[in-house]
Amino acid sequence: MEFVRSIPELRAAVRSARSHGKTIGLVPTMGAMHEGHYSLMRRARLECGFVVVSLFVNPTQFGPNEDLSRYPRDLEGDAAGSAREGVDMLFIPTTDEVYPANHKTSVAVSGLTERLCGRSRPSHFQGVTTVVAKLFGMAQPDRAYFGEKDYQQLQVIRRMTRDLDIPVEVIGCPIVRESDGVAMSSRNRYLSAHDRVAARVLSRSLAGARQRFAAGERSVEALVNPVRAEISGATGVALDYAELLDASELSEIDRVVAPAVLAVAAKVGPARLIDNTVLDPTTGA
Amino acid sequence: MEFVRSIPELRAAVRSARSHGKTIGLVPTMGAMHEGHYSLMRRARLECGFVVVSLFVNPTQFGPNEDLSRYPRDLEGDAAGSAREGVDMLFIPTTDEVYPANHKTSVAVSGLTERLCGRSRPSHFQGVTTVVAKLFGMAQPDRAYFGEKDYQQLQVIRRMTRDLDIPVEVIGCPIVRESDGVAMSSRNRYLSAHDRVAARVLSRSLAGARQRFAAGERSVEALVNPVRAEISGATGVALDYAELLDASELSEIDRVVAPAVLAVAAKVGPARLIDNTVLDPTTGA
Repeated sequence: MEFVRSIPELRAAVRSARSHGKTIGLVPTMGAMHEGHYSLMRRARLECGFVVVSLFVNPTQFGPNEDLSRYPRDLEGDAAGSAREGVDMLFIPTTDEVYPANHKTSVAVSGLTERLCGRSRPSHFQGVTTVVAKLFGMAQPDRAYFGEKDYQQLQVIRRMTRDLDIPVEVIGCPIVRESDGVAMSSRNRYLSAHDRVAARVLSRSLAGARQRFAAGERSVEALVNPVRAEISGATGVALDYAELLDASELSEIDRVVAPAVLAVAAKVGPARLIDNTVLDPTTGA
Repeated sequence: MEFVRSIPELRAAVRSARSHGKTIGLVPTMGAMHEGHYSLMRRARLECGFVVVSLFVNPTQFGPNEDLSRYPRDLEGDAAGSAREGVDMLFIPTTDEVYPANHKTSVAVSGLTERLCGRSRPSHFQGVTTVVAKLFGMAQPDRAYFGEKDYQQLQVIRRMTRDLDIPVEVIGCPIVRESDGVAMSSRNRYLSAHDRVAARVLSRSLAGARQRFAAGERSVEALVNPVRAEISGATGVALDYAELLDASELSEIDRVVAPAVLAVAAKVGPARLIDNTVLDPTTGA
């Protein structure tokens, strides 16, 4: 596995791979990797001749009171894990490489970013769409892989990519969970043993909603209210939101008559965690 | 010359040209072409193996009280002129092709867009940067050609392209003028014979400033004030702005110690016209 830090080196490697007829796959990450990240790399490895993993903790997607400065970093572990997955290139740019002097451009998606995490983190998605557009420009991948754990992010990136006519296929990959149901997240590293147990309430409450949905419940209130109550009632957990929205437009609905996403966010100890599940009335699950 | 209306057709043609080793040149236009446009095509024809001219009157760069509905259209003349310049492909998408349902993404450049036309036309440059980013995504050109007449637009597009790491070389081409000095513009078609004579005051006032600059004047006030007075004093002409700014950041300066741009805008009869000249103290002209 090769390590590169500059955009010209990355481009030269991508150009060379493409000239050998290889498909380019990009897995954008902020490091502190876990099985969720590795599942993206495995999918990319299956589908692409040349796999680039980018590792960049993007400052512009953190709010002023968020965890940028303490975001977990584990370059050694990340490099070992990426190499184990057969990644061809780890791209680790500096902040100056990504945001040179007088960087003045931003990419924003309206609508999709107004609810859920967009409400609690007002500048977050603009930071995400800008850096992802840039990474797409830098690496010119054919395919890019993102986790469905960050469901809203995935939908926003899909829309941005379509709207800006960027010729990249955006691929969402399923949430990877621990054996007790907790969704894998770099931020789980913030959790004490006690927090870690408390964190189960997110996936447990979603599973309860899935059961009610499978039993035929279609009312948004009847599906969401128990989730809110369960998370709000948990000790050491502060609910941020629990919402059931149209799965592609992330707009409000009353009843589930088309695919919908039930998304939750909560503060568990020092960590803000998110989770979600898609409810599809065409399959009833 | 081939005509295409859909993005997939455009992409297929570009892919085929590139597979034959050809460099792709893009000339984005809003039609109503004149010698300024044709000069861009000639430059592209010299430098590129495959030249695409796009013709799209982009609604999002017009303000609510601007001239979108009456913007001049001359498809027949444009097609004949483009063919005469040896253009390979004229890309004429519909508005629905460019902005499909639920289009939610915008690209914005801050700083550079605050002064000059950005002040009188608050959403203009966001419309421009969004559509140009999209055209770059659609056509994936190696080089794209823009006129220096739209000086601020050119700087904003350069910055956007650099900031989003889009691998396109943005090339600015000199202003083309009529024999009496008036800068060529599609909007000159709005002018009556009387307006057309009045319009000379823009280029004439810039020429006066160039003379003072060549004679050694470096004070911004001394260079700009006579331009303001001359345009304001002209009958049938309403000054919008005359400003002398840093040529790359478009920021305010007191004296010309680095390349600077003297840019003017005025309403002449029914047309809002712009013009500019770059003053370079390293050459004294």
